[in-house]
Amino acid sequence: MTPADLPGFFARREDLNAADFIELDYAFECYGDPRLAAAHLCSEQSTAQWHRVGIDEDYRPRFGAKVLDLQVEGRRPAPSYATGATTGAGAGEVSVCRVTIAHPHGNFGPRIPNLLSAVVGEGVFFVPGIPLIKLLDLRMPDGFLSAFPGPRFGIAGIRDLLGVHDRPIFFGVIKPNIGLPPEPFAELAYEGWLGGLDVAKDDEMLADAPWCPLAQRSAQLGAARRRAETVTGVTKCYMANVTDEVDRLIELHDLAVANGANMLLINALPVGLSAVRMLSRHTRVPLVGHFPMIAALSRLPGYGIHTRVITKLQRLAGLDAIVMPGFGGRMGMDEAEVLESVAACVDPMGGLAPSLPIPGGSDWAGTLEGVYRRVGSVDFGFIPGRGVFGHPMGPTGGAASLRQAWEAIAQGVSIDEYAQTHPELSAAIAAFGGRG
Amino acid sequence: MTPADLPGFFARREDLNAADFIELDYAFECYGDPRLAAAHLCSEQSTAQWHRVGIDEDYRPRFGAKVLDLQVEGRRPAPSYATGATTGAGAGEVSVCRVTIAHPHGNFGPRIPNLLSAVVGEGVFFVPGIPLIKLLDLRMPDGFLSAFPGPRFGIAGIRDLLGVHDRPIFFGVIKPNIGLPPEPFAELAYEGWLGGLDVAKDDEMLADAPWCPLAQRSAQLGAARRRAETVTGVTKCYMANVTDEVDRLIELHDLAVANGANMLLINALPVGLSAVRMLSRHTRVPLVGHFPMIAALSRLPGYGIHTRVITKLQRLAGLDAIVMPGFGGRMGMDEAEVLESVAACVDPMGGLAPSLPIPGGSDWAGTLEGVYRRVGSVDFGFIPGRGVFGHPMGPTGGAASLRQAWEAIAQGVSIDEYAQTHPELSAAIAAFGGRG
Repeated sequence: MTPADLPGFFARREDLNAADFIELDYAFECYGDPRLAAAHLCSEQSTAQWHRVGIDEDYRPRFGAKVLDLQVEGRRPAPSYATGATTGAGAGEVSVCRVTIAHPHGNFGPRIPNLLSAVVGEGVFFVPGIPLIKLLDLRMPDGFLSAFPGPRFGIAGIRDLLGVHDRPIFFGVIKPNIGLPPEPFAELAYEGWLGGLDVAKDDEMLADAPWCPLAQRSAQLGAARRRAETVTGVTKCYMANVTDEVDRLIELHDLAVANGANMLLINALPVGLSAVRMLSRHTRVPLVGHFPMIAALSRLPGYGIHTRVITKLQRLAGLDAIVMPGFGGRMGMDEAEVLESVAACVDPMGGLAPSLPIPGGSDWAGTLEGVYRRVGSVDFGFIPGRGVFGHPMGPTGGAASLRQAWEAIAQGVSIDEYAQTHPELSAAIAAFGGRG
Repeated sequence: MTPADLPGFFARREDLNAADFIELDYAFECYGDPRLAAAHLCSEQSTAQWHRVGIDEDYRPRFGAKVLDLQVEGRRPAPSYATGATTGAGAGEVSVCRVTIAHPHGNFGPRIPNLLSAVVGEGVFFVPGIPLIKLLDLRMPDGFLSAFPGPRFGIAGIRDLLGVHDRPIFFGVIKPNIGLPPEPFAELAYEGWLGGLDVAKDDEMLADAPWCPLAQRSAQLGAARRRAETVTGVTKCYMANVTDEVDRLIELHDLAVANGANMLLINALPVGLSAVRMLSRHTRVPLVGHFPMIAALSRLPGYGIHTRVITKLQRLAGLDAIVMPGFGGRMGMDEAEVLESVAACVDPMGGLAPSLPIPGGSDWAGTLEGVYRRVGSVDFGFIPGRGVFGHPMGPTGGAASLRQAWEAIAQGVSIDEYAQTHPELSAAIAAFGGRG
């Protein structure tokens, strides 16, 4: 890239047709001239050779990504993180930058794998002069978004299914998460439902294993769910984990749903977001995503992919609810980042329905109020594991303690006061109150 | 976890049946007692509640991951990377540790998404007291590996297809990578083949876009390939990029192969490793993986997933050749890490065929010898883009310059000397020699 090449990778927003571009915000640290680094970032993610040898042509106007805004926020004596490279496209001082780029989505079209290849691919993480970069946000125009059906159920669909409209949805991760055969596993779920769980779910680690095959598990849990519905008079959900090789997802969906699972869990990044999109098109029940691998991409403030981006992509892929690392010390998350992920579930996004945010992490009755206050709405899922299934009075007591905690919140009473007349809540405080 | 719980997550290797376990090496930094942190790491990735309330049972012996070895390598005043968390399971000094864990693969079975969920999932990246962790390696027993067919062609199959057994395989990434319609795009490939390319390939960014649909592109390139084979008398390959939504992969394979593509490119992490496995079972031609997103997981020495792990998983998924960021300053890779990824392609791995390593990054004729000396064998692919298609004499000259560079190496002559009688090599040195 010569200085004369740079202007081809810069543009003013008013000169572009907004409908043709995805906007990308990156933070990066670079050696040398930030304008050159930003131009390389555009070139590498779109067209790094924009004409044939000996032919007077230029593919940048239509196909080139373009810098809309570049801010140099400061200088550092060295990159924030040593990368271990023995050689590299620079050394010494770096500039700390923010850039907004317009990327022409017509380069690839409304396809998740190709979108990922463009915005977090080789052309982003191997830019000359940029050792550290993080994709902070992406904004897709409505026309691009309209190619994605998005969540089929969303928050409204999940609420309608359960008949619950005025409070958080209470999920419980059945524990012990692995090891139990189907029959006692179903018994635990049944006890949880009786105590007031809306949804009993498989752990994200529970696969279609020989010691607890999905066929038998979903049959047992489906039957237990119907028994619980008869006893309690309200709809209950069993969320079966169908995470498996992509060519088994449809088959496992059909099997689990036929047996009585009325929600499904899928580990979004391990199966791939495109596989989630495929399953979302097929599913007859709400599809809930779990978050393995996301932290490996997102934890460091200055490198990787921001969680809000991955949350948006999960919603784009059609997840009706999104489990995410939540508030409090247990998950070590920055509170603002959790809130940004919650917002990515529910904020306007073309015509896509909102996904139910489920921030979680070692929750129990005593953490409910904090989650509710932070989310600022009842539109969330609350998802303890041991807080229900490790409760000293068993799963029925554990589930009851959640509902009692919500009653206290709804009545404006402290849980300590409410616990004086509610033994399940009292036992939860005694057992889990030290967790902080 | 109480002190009494710890021994359930430790074991001696000689007390375990090796065939039942995957071995995992992690580097981590932890607050507090490293033994407690390591036990939590095992618990969270297997069973965090190993008995039902009120029932005397223990699922750890069969289902628990277990520490085989734990080394504390030192102390630091704070974690190597600040994580941005406002709260967390610790503060202050950390211990720098290495741990080897035996994880019972019977917990989930030979399924890539479930393997990923176990070894790089929530249970690894959200361990109490461990803000930073990296999966450095995984070793799978032969019985587990035998459930994976692995590469269908591998190095031997690719060599047989091309009839090339005694030198590196010469790939060229057709440039301009995006923007050209099928006919001139095919013409560029044809010129490259005439000059001596073995394989002309689509860029990893080139999708099935309306301005260059895969149907027309593969038809044009397939026909051009056959013309080049007639003219040169040797087999040539066109590698079509079929990266797309997972439910289109089989269809695009069938289309491209029917039209004359005899290799396929797929962006492994963007489509998902499980989708690669699915396509590998179906493919009739060698399947080549490209590396978008991998750096986002692997670049930092102290966090994420080591490239060798992802290379092993790509081979497990059945990729016949693996494009990886290569040597030299352009990609900013640590040389040892590239060599570890090359080794992961070719070292013994149960009954799995070796994958052809293709280390790349702004290569041209002048970088060939360095790649060859570092790999230490002819079993690699060499993959320039502009080094062929940006050559001042055009793609035929660019491809010829590669072959001339190899002739010089084979004859023990310096390329500068060889260039004196070979104008294409001479022109490459003049055009690209300043790249370093």
